[in-house]
Amino acid sequence: MTGAVRLLGLDPGLQHTGWGVVESAGSRLRHLGDGVISTDADSPLAERLRALHLALAALIEAWRPDEAAVEHTYVNKNPGAALKLGQARGVVLLAPALAGIPVAEYQAMEVKRAVVGTGHAEKAQVEAMVKRLLPGATLRRADAADALAVAICHAHHRGTKLALARGYVPA
Amino acid sequence: MTGAVRLLGLDPGLQHTGWGVVESAGSRLRHLGDGVISTDADSPLAERLRALHLALAALIEAWRPDEAAVEHTYVNKNPGAALKLGQARGVVLLAPALAGIPVAEYQAMEVKRAVVGTGHAEKAQVEAMVKRLLPGATLRRADAADALAVAICHAHHRGTKLALARGYVPA
Repeated sequence: MTGAVRLLGLDPGLQHTGWGVVESAGSRLRHLGDGVISTDADSPLAERLRALHLALAALIEAWRPDEAAVEHTYVNKNPGAALKLGQARGVVLLAPALAGIPVAEYQAMEVKRAVVGTGHAEKAQVEAMVKRLLPGATLRRADAADALAVAICHAHHRGTKLALARGYVPA
Repeated sequence: MTGAVRLLGLDPGLQHTGWGVVESAGSRLRHLGDGVISTDADSPLAERLRALHLALAALIEAWRPDEAAVEHTYVNKNPGAALKLGQARGVVLLAPALAGIPVAEYQAMEVKRAVVGTGHAEKAQVEAMVKRLLPGATLRRADAADALAVAICHAHHRGTKLALARGYVPA
């Protein structure tokens, strides 16, 4: 496809990190792959982060995405849970950055609005719309649906988002 | 020094990550180096984490520590602040793990108890004791003092801590 870009969506979690790869060409979207990276809850934290990093690096090596997008999970839980999620999220943001791939971040509401049309959609609605927009997606796990949703969101907003991330402020 | 091990202490932060390297041989401790890695607050998050990772990797390459220790910062702040700290902490734990270096974690109270003798010591007391225990330390920044403190703590507890991290439970 001419002008097609390959986008990697990521939904971070220490236990399960969802990932999804889509191809975007103009207004057309195509599902390429999705899945979940899980880490062993019985391993020391540093080992789990290492396993997550190595899996992400292999994923990026295999799919060679042009850009990545990560959901900025809203945390209303306790600070301990937020710290734990943050540790996985730091490693998830790092992997594409180390590979020289631009990383965009989206609020959960932006993702829902881009996929379902409203920022207050339920998880099941997001999943149903991801399936409709990307017929090839198997979505064996919900984490992969969220990752594909953030990739779809990025396909819609990438022009503006990456320009802003580079410090460009539109007039 | 026969039987000497080189220990890297790390005090994670997105803005400033303190580091300190000490040599431990029996009950003797020697200061080798310390400093702070700072990231540009105006850069996108993924870029800051990348800068932090590359600086840590260079540090590990230069000092070749045998073991690393990271303070488990207690977060009583809001979940947003905890998420931010967590992102830096994930990247800090990852760097030694990727280099194949065992990483131990210590609660702030364990570090204070090891260095000052009480888990409720003030920051200034910790710094004063680090200076006394490691005469060579310059400690231009408080973050470096905290990193050396966790390295000192690890020198005291490393036998037990690393065995536990490997899943060995003493009888």
